[in-house]
Amino acid sequence: MANIQQVAKKAGVSVATVSRVLNNNATVSPATRLKVETAIHELNYEPSMLGRNLRNSESRLLLVLIPSIANPFYSEIINGIQDTAISNSYHILLCETDSNPQRENIYFNMIKNKLADGAISMDPAVNMQKLNELAVYYPIIQCSEYDEGGVIPYVTIDNELAAYRAVKHLIKLGHERIALINVDEKFLFARQRRSGYEKALKEFNIPILEELIYHTEQLEFEYGTHAMRKLLQLEEKPTAVFAVSDTLAIGALKEINTCELRVPEDIAIVGFDKISFSNMTNPTLTTVSQPMYKMGCTAANMLINSIKGNKIENVILDHELVIRESTMG
Amino acid sequence: MANIQQVAKKAGVSVATVSRVLNNNATVSPATRLKVETAIHELNYEPSMLGRNLRNSESRLLLVLIPSIANPFYSEIINGIQDTAISNSYHILLCETDSNPQRENIYFNMIKNKLADGAISMDPAVNMQKLNELAVYYPIIQCSEYDEGGVIPYVTIDNELAAYRAVKHLIKLGHERIALINVDEKFLFARQRRSGYEKALKEFNIPILEELIYHTEQLEFEYGTHAMRKLLQLEEKPTAVFAVSDTLAIGALKEINTCELRVPEDIAIVGFDKISFSNMTNPTLTTVSQPMYKMGCTAANMLINSIKGNKIENVILDHELVIRESTMG
Repeated sequence: MANIQQVAKKAGVSVATVSRVLNNNATVSPATRLKVETAIHELNYEPSMLGRNLRNSESRLLLVLIPSIANPFYSEIINGIQDTAISNSYHILLCETDSNPQRENIYFNMIKNKLADGAISMDPAVNMQKLNELAVYYPIIQCSEYDEGGVIPYVTIDNELAAYRAVKHLIKLGHERIALINVDEKFLFARQRRSGYEKALKEFNIPILEELIYHTEQLEFEYGTHAMRKLLQLEEKPTAVFAVSDTLAIGALKEINTCELRVPEDIAIVGFDKISFSNMTNPTLTTVSQPMYKMGCTAANMLINSIKGNKIENVILDHELVIRESTMG
Repeated sequence: MANIQQVAKKAGVSVATVSRVLNNNATVSPATRLKVETAIHELNYEPSMLGRNLRNSESRLLLVLIPSIANPFYSEIINGIQDTAISNSYHILLCETDSNPQRENIYFNMIKNKLADGAISMDPAVNMQKLNELAVYYPIIQCSEYDEGGVIPYVTIDNELAAYRAVKHLIKLGHERIALINVDEKFLFARQRRSGYEKALKEFNIPILEELIYHTEQLEFEYGTHAMRKLLQLEEKPTAVFAVSDTLAIGALKEINTCELRVPEDIAIVGFDKISFSNMTNPTLTTVSQPMYKMGCTAANMLINSIKGNKIENVILDHELVIRESTMG
């Protein structure tokens, strides 16, 4: 395929002139324009998207940074982002960062180099300093997880309130020994959900016991199973469990089943996220429903508005406690 | 930030000359090179990745086309692709096509425009004609699903043999009324797995009954639940079910639980894929294990070899029947 240099040579003009013709720049004379267009036609030259991006500074691509696609929590958010992007003539590229700074850099460079028009970050372990630096110059939105002190607009839910309601639901059912299966509290949502757990216990004068609070490194099923195994080894077992993700709750449920304890009679359990699998377990899982699709749509709309140069406000979406068999007698 | 035109102007040379300097082209005189480098330094010009791509025709990015990230089957394959890509200094961009030709086109254009060096397609509903056309000029690999008559190299498993073994396992346990929950047979893997199902039944002189074969539109849980509901309405119920995906099998298991039938005593069930959920169900699911991580590594290696211009052979990987509680008494 011909390149822009060959077109310039054939037309007897500079590369910059060819570029001006391609951009419909009015400073090109009709005669020169004709020469260039003839050369383009004869060489069957197709201006590349790269070239167009360089010229127009617009790729119509949005990056979506996620830590891992294995977590089903992200898929509905991404559907929302995708649908909103497409109805605004944008397309999205998913970037699995694995919370690895080196991988993040590659994607940050795509934005710096105008290969994408902006980004939505959903990685709770993203390098916040770098993200904040980038957000000074480029449109960036945080979705679900965010930086409290930062400059980046975000859409999220009230994690503390949601956790408070989940734990209060268990207290109202008569539970006092309520375990918390939390993930590493380096994540903001983990700190917020613990805070909601403690708030509910305090309100009902139930002591907060460190032995009932278990932290996992990750959110995968196996970590929930392991956490539950430890909790079931306590001299006085918990009668209820609040897990900060459905994946952890489902892993815990598996261990309870293995030990031939009954849910909810022996141990009640509440998860968080309402992933599709939470309705396939036996018993089905009580969980906090985040409006994931809407969150994705909102994040995409915020990003597109930011690309247009509009001012963006943070958004806190509603959540809902979905009561199912794992807490119903 | 300065652009290449400003650098050229400041150095008093053409844009093409700046480009030659950036590419270390030997035809540039030392004096001109110095002028350009001084201008680059003074203007704090950073050559963009876009420019570099145009010049080097190498983006070090690989596209991975998946129909939907909601299907957990893909996540382990993607881990394999990602690890292999990174150890070869490539990065991947995930493209969720939703099996929509318009979205596919956007991503195909990225390849044509050298924004990516090649692609791995995992979309069973991809437009095969377009993919084959593209594969004449650009490195493309198919992973898991493939085109029997096409030119595109692929890595997959022997779906017919895997289904045959799964059904034979049920026959050996004494089952004769074995239902098949299949997806739309427009997909090659669906036709191949049905063929394996029929082969096993024929070998043991068990009649193939259309009433026991149910087709779903999609692979999500809910479709499996619906299929099982229909199968349980038959006058003579099946005593075993082979579902062509774990998602369908888990959906079916849910319906069997709801009807208070026992697994495997009343109905045994076998899935396909060994997704991580399949070990979290109660009872755990017997399933066909595809070497998903290895499949991803293989696909990435094939693509990188193809980018290097090497000849690529198709690869058929081994599979394994993992027997768990849903078929064990």
